Amino acid sequence: MNESHKLVRSNLDYLKKLFIMPDSPDKFIEFGHELLELIHEFFQEKGGIHSSATLPELSAIFNDTNIPESPLLIKDVLTEIKSKIIKHSVKVGSPYYIGHMTSAIPYFMILLEMIIAALNQNQVKIESARASSFVERELIAWVHNLIFDRKSSFYEKNIHNHHISLGNVTSGGTLSNMTALMVAREKAFPPDGDFPGLRMAGSNKALSHYRYSRGVVMVSTRGHYSITKAVNLLGMGESNVINIPVDNNNHIDIRKLRRKIKALQEETHERTKIIAIIGIAGTTETGNIDDLETLAQISREAGAHFHVDAAWGGPALLVDEYRPMFKGIELADSVAIDTHKLLFCPASMGMVLFRNEKDLNLIKHSSHYIIRRNSVDTGRFTLEGSRPFACLKPWAALKIIGRKGYGLLFQHARESTNYLRGILDHCGNFEVLNNPELFILNYRFIPEQVRDQISILEGISAYSNREKARDAEKKIRNINKLINSLNIKFHRELRRDDSTFVSRTTLESTRYRPQNIVVLRAILINPLTEKEVLDEIVQTQNRIGLTIWRDFKPAYLRIRDEVK
Amino acid sequence: MNESHKLVRSNLDYLKKLFIMPDSPDKFIEFGHELLELIHEFFQEKGGIHSSATLPELSAIFNDTNIPESPLLIKDVLTEIKSKIIKHSVKVGSPYYIGHMTSAIPYFMILLEMIIAALNQNQVKIESARASSFVERELIAWVHNLIFDRKSSFYEKNIHNHHISLGNVTSGGTLSNMTALMVAREKAFPPDGDFPGLRMAGSNKALSHYRYSRGVVMVSTRGHYSITKAVNLLGMGESNVINIPVDNNNHIDIRKLRRKIKALQEETHERTKIIAIIGIAGTTETGNIDDLETLAQISREAGAHFHVDAAWGGPALLVDEYRPMFKGIELADSVAIDTHKLLFCPASMGMVLFRNEKDLNLIKHSSHYIIRRNSVDTGRFTLEGSRPFACLKPWAALKIIGRKGYGLLFQHARESTNYLRGILDHCGNFEVLNNPELFILNYRFIPEQVRDQISILEGISAYSNREKARDAEKKIRNINKLINSLNIKFHRELRRDDSTFVSRTTLESTRYRPQNIVVLRAILINPLTEKEVLDEIVQTQNRIGLTIWRDFKPAYLRIRDEVK
Repeated sequence: MNESHKLVRSNLDYLKKLFIMPDSPDKFIEFGHELLELIHEFFQEKGGIHSSATLPELSAIFNDTNIPESPLLIKDVLTEIKSKIIKHSVKVGSPYYIGHMTSAIPYFMILLEMIIAALNQNQVKIESARASSFVERELIAWVHNLIFDRKSSFYEKNIHNHHISLGNVTSGGTLSNMTALMVAREKAFPPDGDFPGLRMAGSNKALSHYRYSRGVVMVSTRGHYSITKAVNLLGMGESNVINIPVDNNNHIDIRKLRRKIKALQEETHERTKIIAIIGIAGTTETGNIDDLETLAQISREAGAHFHVDAAWGGPALLVDEYRPMFKGIELADSVAIDTHKLLFCPASMGMVLFRNEKDLNLIKHSSHYIIRRNSVDTGRFTLEGSRPFACLKPWAALKIIGRKGYGLLFQHARESTNYLRGILDHCGNFEVLNNPELFILNYRFIPEQVRDQISILEGISAYSNREKARDAEKKIRNINKLINSLNIKFHRELRRDDSTFVSRTTLESTRYRPQNIVVLRAILINPLTEKEVLDEIVQTQNRIGLTIWRDFKPAYLRIRDEVK
Repeated sequence: MNESHKLVRSNLDYLKKLFIMPDSPDKFIEFGHELLELIHEFFQEKGGIHSSATLPELSAIFNDTNIPESPLLIKDVLTEIKSKIIKHSVKVGSPYYIGHMTSAIPYFMILLEMIIAALNQNQVKIESARASSFVERELIAWVHNLIFDRKSSFYEKNIHNHHISLGNVTSGGTLSNMTALMVAREKAFPPDGDFPGLRMAGSNKALSHYRYSRGVVMVSTRGHYSITKAVNLLGMGESNVINIPVDNNNHIDIRKLRRKIKALQEETHERTKIIAIIGIAGTTETGNIDDLETLAQISREAGAHFHVDAAWGGPALLVDEYRPMFKGIELADSVAIDTHKLLFCPASMGMVLFRNEKDLNLIKHSSHYIIRRNSVDTGRFTLEGSRPFACLKPWAALKIIGRKGYGLLFQHARESTNYLRGILDHCGNFEVLNNPELFILNYRFIPEQVRDQISILEGISAYSNREKARDAEKKIRNINKLINSLNIKFHRELRRDDSTFVSRTTLESTRYRPQNIVVLRAILINPLTEKEVLDEIVQTQNRIGLTIWRDFKPAYLRIRDEVK
């Protein structure tokens, strides 16, 4: 602990004062001003995405295993936060940080957080969230309308109809997906005669009542990991997530999906209930959107709940020109959408919307002391209990930025994506490996000579006799294996260099399928990431890539020149 | 929409500026200053807990069913927030608002929220949360140490051991309870030979492999409603929550628990696995703490996971004199604790801690693009995905307030509780109906003459012949039924009056058991709730109660004078 920290004489009067918004807010303003200055400094700082402190060094900074005994002065704790935390935080808002969906946020978000904290409403219940409950319902109606586009009379009737809920505000996409799948499960195993429904009886009794031996959820191999987590949580068993391969554009392969459903239906040794089919509107790794319209139809035929995970892509619906990509989303039973990604709100908030206004009643609950049965409390429908007034952020952002503003932001994102693709291609030492609909680019470092060699080998594979073709393909695989190792090392080196940031993943769906290819992943949504920044990022990466290449070149030459 | 809102010429340059912390933060400071003034005004405002706007009136304010098309100026939206939202918010920080666990917060929390939003770290992954991941682990170690008090070598070894997690930060107690029960379920049905464990196979296959027909969770009738919700979510069936009655002090009835376990074990038509037994450390309705030590022993004997829901009471462990009440908590397998209740942080954040550092590995997960298997990412262990840097708030609060400071705050809370009990008793027209360990008082309005009459009837019931006793008891029940109606109306009237706020619940565990009694519920944790405020609250309630009594008196007299 900082030696200069002085102990504060601890007495109740001092503590009480902490709970009062000061009569003259000078003290507060003073702290606030200092804070803003220091946040500003942090963002202005030249240098890397984060400080040079290593993880073990950071461990050593935060290694107190006991709660502090005596109170410290606010200003001392703020100083500590500055030197220990802010200094070693990740500059997720940096234009050079293009690796994750967490990005820059508009500064008015900080003002909104002040309001949210000061009001400290708890959304679980009208008694602790009055106007804010209505703000939440209004926001939910907006987003429901955006997605499902039902009649205006539907929204007029239901926006504040407290018997139902059109959707929930959640802590993020994971909770949204969980909520949707929980509803799907209830719909799959409803009460029936003496059987009180899955909710009351549990999934084992539900399956046996309906004579199924398992319930499954189907989603493409691009499905977010939260889906497996949700299926585990729901007690359905992770092995009952059925991942359907994707096509070359990372869209779920419709033919394979149909074939799998048919196979499930024809199985004789066990009967399978398809609880839900999930379409993805903005895959996390590659920014692609499934054929939602066809998925809706298939789901209907299969008697499955159709959920769309639009946590990433959903906000693009705000802009008319993106709408056609989402065709069919209005047929979904439920849709998850996040506000801390393409709506540019701080981490984290999600929403889940249900086309059928009665669906959320399937998981409605109540208690004596809050969320009474006939109340108007939002908490009757949510998985979570206490919740902050987080919905103020997207509500205000949609007003301040507006649909038109979001249109401009997405246009910038698309231009950035295309520009990055262009300069990567032009450089020659990179290979772009996906075709995104939404602002995510996968690429890898691969020296031009190696790409050329792969082209030659591909030619041989296509036009030679079987044995030669097999040899060429084997060589391609070995080269890719080597380039995979190179890119893992490359990514590590980029993180050490720390002047730019992209993330990394592994895809089976590139043009080298089924071989797994290690790719870098750039997410191009920061409006401050200008063309010049992208030029600089590619130059830096090319320089670092070429340095690493030296270590890999001998091994490459061995593979290239190997004669069987 | 406010007529005066002007459309902003929407262009990308304007939008980009929103994403930049201004070079000179003047603009920001200006907004910030205005905001603080207006928050200050709101708190200073005389009058009720909330504005006089009715719910239908509020519906009419927030009834736009479409997302705004064009951008609005920040200042116009802030004005709108002021007139529509702040004005109609609930003053949860008011000293007269003593009805929910959401209460006043120290003003430095607003500063912390500014930091959290400005940094916008996402805790799911080290790449977007560097120092903040370590802050989180430090906080978790503190709280784990506070609860389980293991050796210091244990904490030195594990505080930053990235192979395990001592606990999770969650969005609140509900998620904490869900996480604990999910772990409990995995422990109950582990892999075994060819059986891959519940996680992979699902609960139906798990039950059948282990030859159980159901899994149950046992908790007292005071259990929080989130437990039923969690059991439903987990697919175990709500009917498999077994609620054990409480004694007159709202502690789980140990004898009845043992008897029920024995009955389950002796059942022949179906075999039951007791997945978890839950102890409550701070019941939501009555502020009581179960006999945790005995529950730990019973759980061990029953082979059940022992979870303690200390969402409300946990922070009292900070103060040595409260420690004895929690005896046995250190034997729990897991403990849930909230920071937005007795740690005085804004809504909402919870934590769940596991005694065994390996338990959370049972639900560990990974993916290619984030939270890779060998990473140090916090997200490998959490139910939630993206999460804000919320842990900064309790981390800083524990430093600024310190254990000693919390001790003073809890002392004030206890004194308030005792004082309120005293003046309610002294008034004569109230009856206190619980014996809290932690700052929650249940009482009802009941005119002195009615209380006296009940005493007389109780005398008759105790000392008369059977028939007379039965008559007297019946009369007591009828009087209580009437007084229940009175208190429901009374509570409605209090909310209409709006100068004070308490909540309401229904208890079966008062001295009139098994009859359900409607009670008011006061939560005495706001350090600004002084004795004078409590005097005023009781005076107001007495006045309003007596007014309502007039409507009920004739019915009361009929019951009193009724001759069988």
